[in-house]
Amino acid sequence: MLTTELSEAEVSALRVNKERLAKDLHHSCQWGYGIRWGDGSTDTGMQRLALSEEDKSVRNWFIQTMKDLKCQITVDEMGNIFAVRPGKRTDVPATFIGSHLDTQPTGGRYDGILGVLSGVEALKRMDEMGLETEGGVGVVNWTNEEGARFPVSMISSGIWAECIPLSKAHGLKEVPTVASLPTAASAPETMKSALQKIDYLGSVPCSYKSTPMAAHFELHIEQGPHLVSAGQRVGVVTAVQAYRWYRLNVIGRDTHTGTTAFEHRADALYAFSRMMVRAREVAKSRGCLASVGIVEAKPGSVNTVPGTVSFSLDIRGPETELVAEVEKELRKDFDGIAAEEGAGIGKPCRVEWTLDFDSPAVKFHEDCIGCVQDSAYAVVADAPVADTKSLVRPIMSGAGHDSVFTSKRVPTSMIFVPCRDGLSHHPEEFCSADDCATGASVILQAVVRYDRKRFA
Amino acid sequence: MLTTELSEAEVSALRVNKERLAKDLHHSCQWGYGIRWGDGSTDTGMQRLALSEEDKSVRNWFIQTMKDLKCQITVDEMGNIFAVRPGKRTDVPATFIGSHLDTQPTGGRYDGILGVLSGVEALKRMDEMGLETEGGVGVVNWTNEEGARFPVSMISSGIWAECIPLSKAHGLKEVPTVASLPTAASAPETMKSALQKIDYLGSVPCSYKSTPMAAHFELHIEQGPHLVSAGQRVGVVTAVQAYRWYRLNVIGRDTHTGTTAFEHRADALYAFSRMMVRAREVAKSRGCLASVGIVEAKPGSVNTVPGTVSFSLDIRGPETELVAEVEKELRKDFDGIAAEEGAGIGKPCRVEWTLDFDSPAVKFHEDCIGCVQDSAYAVVADAPVADTKSLVRPIMSGAGHDSVFTSKRVPTSMIFVPCRDGLSHHPEEFCSADDCATGASVILQAVVRYDRKRFA
Repeated sequence: MLTTELSEAEVSALRVNKERLAKDLHHSCQWGYGIRWGDGSTDTGMQRLALSEEDKSVRNWFIQTMKDLKCQITVDEMGNIFAVRPGKRTDVPATFIGSHLDTQPTGGRYDGILGVLSGVEALKRMDEMGLETEGGVGVVNWTNEEGARFPVSMISSGIWAECIPLSKAHGLKEVPTVASLPTAASAPETMKSALQKIDYLGSVPCSYKSTPMAAHFELHIEQGPHLVSAGQRVGVVTAVQAYRWYRLNVIGRDTHTGTTAFEHRADALYAFSRMMVRAREVAKSRGCLASVGIVEAKPGSVNTVPGTVSFSLDIRGPETELVAEVEKELRKDFDGIAAEEGAGIGKPCRVEWTLDFDSPAVKFHEDCIGCVQDSAYAVVADAPVADTKSLVRPIMSGAGHDSVFTSKRVPTSMIFVPCRDGLSHHPEEFCSADDCATGASVILQAVVRYDRKRFA
Repeated sequence: MLTTELSEAEVSALRVNKERLAKDLHHSCQWGYGIRWGDGSTDTGMQRLALSEEDKSVRNWFIQTMKDLKCQITVDEMGNIFAVRPGKRTDVPATFIGSHLDTQPTGGRYDGILGVLSGVEALKRMDEMGLETEGGVGVVNWTNEEGARFPVSMISSGIWAECIPLSKAHGLKEVPTVASLPTAASAPETMKSALQKIDYLGSVPCSYKSTPMAAHFELHIEQGPHLVSAGQRVGVVTAVQAYRWYRLNVIGRDTHTGTTAFEHRADALYAFSRMMVRAREVAKSRGCLASVGIVEAKPGSVNTVPGTVSFSLDIRGPETELVAEVEKELRKDFDGIAAEEGAGIGKPCRVEWTLDFDSPAVKFHEDCIGCVQDSAYAVVADAPVADTKSLVRPIMSGAGHDSVFTSKRVPTSMIFVPCRDGLSHHPEEFCSADDCATGASVILQAVVRYDRKRFA
């Protein structure tokens, strides 16, 4: 059976195996399971930092699983794993389903993992149906999407898209998190050394030129409250909000907590606190978000006023320009706050900004969005409601994903499914087996529809 | 020559050797010198955490120096080192000069070090003069006064005074600072293991009963701006302000920075920031101080809203009751701040307090204060000003010192000398050789006067 020979009704009837998808997903979570939050066997979060031993184990499992499905495996010099199920034609690039197997240090079982596992399930389903595609279909696991251990998110898809230089990634050092603290605090590993350590430093160049794709589809939990609170089942992702990541240093003066009056202090941590409060005010006023995830105060002694504080700042908004406006206003305000702290002794704090990452707002590709939307309508068509199309909505992504970078080189779009309370980056992150299967069925159909569209 | 046979004029003429004191002090700073701030050979700070290898080296030097002065050495089970120069009478406890040789992770060359070195110099001066005392005179180096590595300050004098149980100290784990991070982050040492490691776990019980004292005098830099800004040379310390140290935890919820609207967050770090801003407001309104020296946000990832923050809080004030009032008000206010953050999702932050240390306000002993005051007047009497007594002032200590604990068991007082800009707990902490010598001459005379008073 060949995709281009199916009827529209046959395409719309395609579904994944819900039980097998859930079983495989939780099987893969044995490597790096995290904090327990319930009594069930799968009621834990995940702690699987990029290029950790746990990540190595799940990568090995992924490769073996894809080999069993007769896929060809490519590992590039960022450790990205591309598994391709060949199509009828071998002269064209494959259509990919992709996401990531790494997690936050206190993450859950669905962010990224569902995306890769939906690809595994889609290929298993095709295999058992004997469904042949015109072009190949691949599944890709992108390295360090989270940016938790190595502090640039989506770095490996960024290098593949040639938007980030390889040298930056290979030299990037791990940062301390609850999971990476032991090595990060004493002898931080670089991405290159970490890749070598777990045997995933491939020889193939990391580039869309060396490992081309026809398109990239990604299934992900929404990580927000819109679908779940509206009782909807599928989000057709049309765009990704803009965001920028900064590292800031506030430099004041170490001094004694017991003997230094407030007016004699240049307390970098006090200045930071005022900055964080202000950041929320400014972001809120423009419909944006501003967040601090990392803060380090030095020297770190109960009775010394911290003279140096460094912190991360993450600003996001629906438009690239809005993020730039928030940055502009905060630069002014932070300078003002710093200048006030220590002014009494003529040694005010000062603040330094470094832009670590800049991701402008992204619009996905119409062809891919169309395939996802048609598939979503088809998959929810048997739901017991009058207007089944109301279960599907167009949606913007608040988070960055590897699809942001693939979209710069190949047609791309994404599918969202609801998660409980809109919660993610948390051990209790949860997506029901039904919702996982709905999303995976949509991506299976989307890939088939895209293949038919390409070779119509 | 015996102290009790000296004339008042002979006592008033006693002076230390300024050059030798400066030389010894900087010699001792070769172990654990810290951040360089100037071109001079001694223009560095200190980084000599308690029970580090550098601390071991300076302890070994101290013991050898005191042995050369024919002192008897006792090391107790907290590693406190007592060096006693015997007096004429051997049936009475010695009068002690004491302070500490450990420093902050980014500390200076005078805090604590000047106190111990002034004792060394006082004994050298007595030795070369052939001056005999009625009771013995000792110098004590107290372990971990700073509380920087092991987070209870003055812990070893506290145990000596039987105000803190030995088990608490022996089990106390080091905390991460810029200097202790490597071990503290992976396998934190306890005080007991650290004492063993550097061979300073003595067998003598740490108690004022086993190692009695007649009195305790301590010379210290002011660590504040009063003396230096008034052009005064000696502070006669009459009291020490009250303070309390707490560790607080704010518990919110880890969640994604990109997809979680502010009203859906229980951001523990944002709550912390508001708390720190509020703490200064409340403390200021009551003439107290509130400071945060340590903050840790978990999980520590750029794109995860921190669900847990722990921080230290140091509240100080001139009266014990005032500190209690600030605490009471902050407990209420912090609960309010926590309750607001996360209220929108019915999962507000909460805050937990642990009192680590409580040091009520202390009044020093009249006899000791009198000896210090008489000595201070005598030492500054040759200054080229009309009213030399105006160079001396009574003063309250803002910082805690080992003298707080010794005062609970034996007559105690302290001497302050000015330091540049009132700065301490900072590499640029500085006290001129003249001021160091003035303070050391005062403590030399004070000990002699106290000896004469005891045996008059």
